[in-house]
Amino acid sequence: MTDDRPRITHVYAGNTLDRAERERRDEDWIAARAVDPSSRFLPVTDRGVLITEDAVPGLVWTGKAELDRNGGGGEPIFLGLMDGVAHFAVDVTDNESGIEALAQGNGRRFEDPRSVTEYVSALDAGITAQARCQMNWHKSHAYCSRCGQPSEIKRGGQVRRCPSCGAEHFPRTDPVVITLVSDGDWCLLGQSRGRLSRSNMYSALAGFMDQGESIEEAVAREIREEAGIEVKNVRYHSSQPWPFPNSLMIGCHAHAATTEIAMDPEEMSDVRWFSREETLLAIDERSEILKVPGRIAIAFHLIRSWAVGEVN
Amino acid sequence: MTDDRPRITHVYAGNTLDRAERERRDEDWIAARAVDPSSRFLPVTDRGVLITEDAVPGLVWTGKAELDRNGGGGEPIFLGLMDGVAHFAVDVTDNESGIEALAQGNGRRFEDPRSVTEYVSALDAGITAQARCQMNWHKSHAYCSRCGQPSEIKRGGQVRRCPSCGAEHFPRTDPVVITLVSDGDWCLLGQSRGRLSRSNMYSALAGFMDQGESIEEAVAREIREEAGIEVKNVRYHSSQPWPFPNSLMIGCHAHAATTEIAMDPEEMSDVRWFSREETLLAIDERSEILKVPGRIAIAFHLIRSWAVGEVN
Repeated sequence: MTDDRPRITHVYAGNTLDRAERERRDEDWIAARAVDPSSRFLPVTDRGVLITEDAVPGLVWTGKAELDRNGGGGEPIFLGLMDGVAHFAVDVTDNESGIEALAQGNGRRFEDPRSVTEYVSALDAGITAQARCQMNWHKSHAYCSRCGQPSEIKRGGQVRRCPSCGAEHFPRTDPVVITLVSDGDWCLLGQSRGRLSRSNMYSALAGFMDQGESIEEAVAREIREEAGIEVKNVRYHSSQPWPFPNSLMIGCHAHAATTEIAMDPEEMSDVRWFSREETLLAIDERSEILKVPGRIAIAFHLIRSWAVGEVN
Repeated sequence: MTDDRPRITHVYAGNTLDRAERERRDEDWIAARAVDPSSRFLPVTDRGVLITEDAVPGLVWTGKAELDRNGGGGEPIFLGLMDGVAHFAVDVTDNESGIEALAQGNGRRFEDPRSVTEYVSALDAGITAQARCQMNWHKSHAYCSRCGQPSEIKRGGQVRRCPSCGAEHFPRTDPVVITLVSDGDWCLLGQSRGRLSRSNMYSALAGFMDQGESIEEAVAREIREEAGIEVKNVRYHSSQPWPFPNSLMIGCHAHAATTEIAMDPEEMSDVRWFSREETLLAIDERSEILKVPGRIAIAFHLIRSWAVGEVN
């Protein structure tokens, strides 16, 4: 059996940095790279990453000297190697004058990690996702969840270790299932609560996986909870890292085993069946009653691949 | 395109409890169920879950009265509803006399969550996985990782809330990729460090996903790190919850793009190519040079499905 499904590299995937699993176990190696004049540092804040729209639009990497001259930032988080050169992310959120100075000239600015994808390469978008996930995790895990004492960054940020109780904590990635359910020429789309203002925007149904369930079980549970629909033939399609804050989107298709919607009004503001015809219009932004997420989101590709008949 | 791949429900999947997403948001509802005489409680310790090998082997659920009579346990963790009846897990690790009393008679004992699968139904194995994951997470997350203060159980254990800083923490599930790499009639199997004693036991290569990568990228990175092999045609096969302590095993097949092994000696004690013939013998426990994991593990099913030609 071969799988001739077209391969998709989603936005935020495509990061080809070598994460240097072997080298980063060596704390001395990491420490030396963090002060190496050839190492490169990506300034990151709570709001965004430093980019330029100059001649070659993309992430702005600074040297150690430029970073220090502008007041520096938090402990450098090692992202990986490119052509043997170490690349780090540095949180400069608390360095207000540095933020202003770093963003001076050359079309430089701190750009939101969502909109940054409109300007930079797939590689740079992937690095942005990795940097954001790491920052998000370190910011929310400064203390040991086992004993409550402050923990320390080790292995360039790949682990936090508690000096009090010895516990090791690893970066967290939350698996989310997102599913396009179809029934012949109809597909099931929903609108989460809190997005009422974008009132004709609908997407594939999604939710965090629970503990102790398979991907296929999580899909069935989420669709049942949000829409009251039973599903069958759950099929994996593709996956996407989603750095808001640390998710792994696991994209699936499924067939409806029942069709009567019983929506969860606390989670969803609307769930509906849309025709293939309307969905095709929405993909081309030509529908008057339906908007779907943009190409940045895996939801778009789940919806599109079904609508055009790549997946049934 | 249809997907006619045979569906597998792995051990630890198959938990049909209704997790009652809507009801459990209501703290009063949870509190009432926790003292309801019709509710059922599964005693759990650090070591295992309470089972019986009596007439009907399976998990032992106690009533509130029996649990209290034996000294009780930690705060009940809500697992879900079955036929409208609330089911909870209760950690009795610290109640030594209670552990002894609860295990009295009727072939009762606390059994390790790995070996328990040899005795109980698929449903009970799935509930064991859910209960173990929940216990593992609460035990290691008593404190808020954001501010270091003690956090509190909410929604029957589905969230921990920090009364000091207001942060909400959700149960953690760690995605792990596990991949059978093949090259025609050969497959790539490895042996992790620390399993030297079981010296002819080999398995599919596996590793935790990093932040900011897709499933397909994680597969390529892990195989490159552990074996020095490049892969192509990564295909998802199936998934399995794995409660040691909180993993989601994401099973894949891939083809080798290179064949020369360059093993990571810190992670692996051996990595080798095995022939289809030898692998088929190993599946039937008839090989003298190769053992593979048992049917409890997704690795067995990844190896078997390739060896018998279900997947190429």
